Amino acid sequence: MARAWNLKSRPSGLPTADNFEFAETSLPELTEGSVHVRNRWLSVDPYMRGRMNDVKSYVPPFQIGQPLEGGAVGEVVESRDPAFQPGDTVLHMAGWRDEAVVPGKSLNKLPPIPGVQPQDFLGNLGVTGGTAWFGLFDAAQAKEGDTLFVSAAAGAVGSAVVQIAKAHGMTVIGSARGADKCEFVRSLGADAVIDYKSGTPLVKALAEAAPKGIDVYFDNVGGDHLDAAFAHARQNARFAICGMIDSYNSAEPMAFRYIMRIIAMRIMLKGFIYTDYMPQMGEFFQKMGALMASGQVKSRDTIVEGLEKTPEAFLGLFSGKNTGKMLVKL
Amino acid sequence: MARAWNLKSRPSGLPTADNFEFAETSLPELTEGSVHVRNRWLSVDPYMRGRMNDVKSYVPPFQIGQPLEGGAVGEVVESRDPAFQPGDTVLHMAGWRDEAVVPGKSLNKLPPIPGVQPQDFLGNLGVTGGTAWFGLFDAAQAKEGDTLFVSAAAGAVGSAVVQIAKAHGMTVIGSARGADKCEFVRSLGADAVIDYKSGTPLVKALAEAAPKGIDVYFDNVGGDHLDAAFAHARQNARFAICGMIDSYNSAEPMAFRYIMRIIAMRIMLKGFIYTDYMPQMGEFFQKMGALMASGQVKSRDTIVEGLEKTPEAFLGLFSGKNTGKMLVKL
Repeated sequence: MARAWNLKSRPSGLPTADNFEFAETSLPELTEGSVHVRNRWLSVDPYMRGRMNDVKSYVPPFQIGQPLEGGAVGEVVESRDPAFQPGDTVLHMAGWRDEAVVPGKSLNKLPPIPGVQPQDFLGNLGVTGGTAWFGLFDAAQAKEGDTLFVSAAAGAVGSAVVQIAKAHGMTVIGSARGADKCEFVRSLGADAVIDYKSGTPLVKALAEAAPKGIDVYFDNVGGDHLDAAFAHARQNARFAICGMIDSYNSAEPMAFRYIMRIIAMRIMLKGFIYTDYMPQMGEFFQKMGALMASGQVKSRDTIVEGLEKTPEAFLGLFSGKNTGKMLVKL
Repeated sequence: MARAWNLKSRPSGLPTADNFEFAETSLPELTEGSVHVRNRWLSVDPYMRGRMNDVKSYVPPFQIGQPLEGGAVGEVVESRDPAFQPGDTVLHMAGWRDEAVVPGKSLNKLPPIPGVQPQDFLGNLGVTGGTAWFGLFDAAQAKEGDTLFVSAAAGAVGSAVVQIAKAHGMTVIGSARGADKCEFVRSLGADAVIDYKSGTPLVKALAEAAPKGIDVYFDNVGGDHLDAAFAHARQNARFAICGMIDSYNSAEPMAFRYIMRIIAMRIMLKGFIYTDYMPQMGEFFQKMGALMASGQVKSRDTIVEGLEKTPEAFLGLFSGKNTGKMLVKL
């Protein structure tokens, strides 16, 4: 029997444990072209909250009574696709479960990269690191000498942004929640860190951290963070809009006091989605792999053990339980 | 004696007649390199509201007790700059007054273009038409086949956007206030018009006008218009952020319910300022002049007569008194 987490009900606002249902199912017969995989690592990511709503978005919604999906690294148990052999380590999207039978064409065999662990393909060498990379260099056109502000800098994407930006000669200001996470962001090389639970309004804190303003803002949060970035943007500033975790569980509109500065400062904002960059993954693996091999980008994972704790790991993303990438180890 | 409108006090919120003071001054002696000009046409534009505040922006603030400034077309009376002769028609920034002595290097002699009137250099062939042109083709990268939404489409910039976009093969939806202005926008060639005083929420009205969504939004208004554009943006939509007249007189933050769609739809927003495009004015005069000569772009001016009515003309911009470009004729 395989075990999986199904979507039991759609949340309104913040998801709770009641929205998930643990289910046992028997795996289907292995047909031509399919592969039986046993998962070792599961990814939980904030974007999954969007898939819990029944609305059209860039990925289809999860279905009630069906297993949730997400990035996973597993080991091939049995294969009827000649491209895979038992024992191969593979990356795929049938997460939130311990075992799965999936089409071979939906699997990627992990390339061996020195100094890189299999679970890094769910983090710095996967969705979160790739999101940081393409957000910086494509959406925001970030370059050496820029002053960059990144919100949620202790998170999986944010911590990659800090390290990649420092490795490329930028001045980096990160925001994080609480003293421990701020210390972590500083340890990644950030030039200044804003504790956004300190009570100082962000627009004031950013003025102090970036007295000459910012050239790039990497947005993971939206709301007051985005407004502070508007307030302190320099001319021709570029904003990569990656996430707005402040709003994922809220139906309230976001209010901005400084949005008019888009005009005076000629600000450019660009929303982007990691999956648009699949054709450039080869280049990304090479360049990001080199930064990881040299130690310029380090992975810091928050690991929760056991399939039964997957919803707990996911829910923890919205209360700041993770530093770096949140992973479930099976 | 020359007569001019001085800034008497800085408005808080909507400006009133009390913020302006009519003053008589004697003109200075004509020194080497300077030119005495008698104005014929004055421009009043929404961006001038920003210069009434004492804040750093892309143009310096107006000074209390000094004449306001703005685009003007005048006739040379006397010249100590060999580039100008009495009788020349010139474009310059010493508006809000009847006569001025200005440096010759701050004047531009108007080129003769068939079918173009001198006052057009304050409108379709000047700041407002140029704003429309560079907003469309540079900031928003608009192209044939796009579905475009433009707010305040009966205004000076908006009416130019509608006509330029139609001349370039786009589908155009414009918003305007009231039946007369909507009829005017339709007469410019718009495919659909939204009356934003009809009571229908904009997000609903735009869904009906653009059932397949929009590729380009040209923002003159901000607020609910921008939010409706977020709601109905297609993938890779581009927004030119030109103005946010909804907020010029308000200290209230702007609230957005659909801003998160920036991510899912990979929306790009770009703020821009007309004066950044001065190096491309030659190309603009040529292409826009051709559209005007062929009748594809027509000027529709709202003309107020008499220098004494300049503040009234300016204040009328914020209560929708103008259709097309608002001008003061001396």
